Amino acid sequence: VFFRGIVVTLVLVLGASVIAAVIPDEGLTRRDGGLARLEGQALLYPEGYERWPVVGAAIGLSYSDRPVTRDGPGNFHRVYLSPAAYDAFLTARTFPEGTTLVMEIYEPAASAPPLRAGFYEGRRVAVEASVKDRRFRGGWAWFDLDNGKAERAAPVASESCLACHREHAATDMVFTQFYPRLR
Amino acid sequence: VFFRGIVVTLVLVLGASVIAAVIPDEGLTRRDGGLARLEGQALLYPEGYERWPVVGAAIGLSYSDRPVTRDGPGNFHRVYLSPAAYDAFLTARTFPEGTTLVMEIYEPAASAPPLRAGFYEGRRVAVEASVKDRRFRGGWAWFDLDNGKAERAAPVASESCLACHREHAATDMVFTQFYPRLR
Repeated sequence: VFFRGIVVTLVLVLGASVIAAVIPDEGLTRRDGGLARLEGQALLYPEGYERWPVVGAAIGLSYSDRPVTRDGPGNFHRVYLSPAAYDAFLTARTFPEGTTLVMEIYEPAASAPPLRAGFYEGRRVAVEASVKDRRFRGGWAWFDLDNGKAERAAPVASESCLACHREHAATDMVFTQFYPRLR
Repeated sequence: VFFRGIVVTLVLVLGASVIAAVIPDEGLTRRDGGLARLEGQALLYPEGYERWPVVGAAIGLSYSDRPVTRDGPGNFHRVYLSPAAYDAFLTARTFPEGTTLVMEIYEPAASAPPLRAGFYEGRRVAVEASVKDRRFRGGWAWFDLDNGKAERAAPVASESCLACHREHAATDMVFTQFYPRLR
């Protein structure tokens, strides 16, 4: 019995080592598929979202009614989707409860040698998120993550988010029409 | 001994199940950290790169000497880095052997309701890669993956890739100066 105990322990330790070796350290979000961690209505910061699949990038998008008056091309948007939701959407074309999308906004930086034209992502100026969860009216809520400094965030109190996403977003409040990977 | 065999087998099977359960199915590249698979000088297609960390996006970049003459803003570039190399670079600021970067190129698509301005990623027109490996002169090689249709690809025979990357890229032939996550 003693010897068997040693064998079992060895196998368990070996098994744990194998698991530890094959799972990169990608933060909590990896192990839970990046589904939202909520406390009441507050969203806990989606640690590790930088490694989630990027579903789309864009530049200069505006849904303002005001005429666009600016010198440059506008800001870059980069949109991430929680891995579990990405898998579910590619398989079933639906977003599961807890789906989180994170949008980073970068100022455009003008090209530098060897580039003769164009823009790349300069200073990051905002990190925002949207979450699918039944506790929110309309099934989704939007959050401002204070350019990555928020440990938690309350939903943005804006009827306009809900109204616009409901009217224009192609799939379940998500603008999949703008995201190559999800079209 | 027979009973011990059963116990060990059970533990192994359980261990394997646990491993299978916690590792999402992300293709071969996940389990090998996305490091390049080479056969001689040929690069085997980096399956699953779509889930790798995106290190930068850009629009309209050109390193052509010819004057830029076009109607739109130019194409989108989106650059992925193999996960093992991403981890290594964030820790040690160096790229390990086998590092792969993949660049997707998308035509710009003009904004559509509810957007009043800007561009998002339209049709994908190219998938390219660069790989760090000692077997290549200069330590790196570049590949055209035929917009995702190539099962394998020979290096692009261009001295200009090497010369330009050597002169202008900030870190070990990689344009980290354009990638927010690596700056």
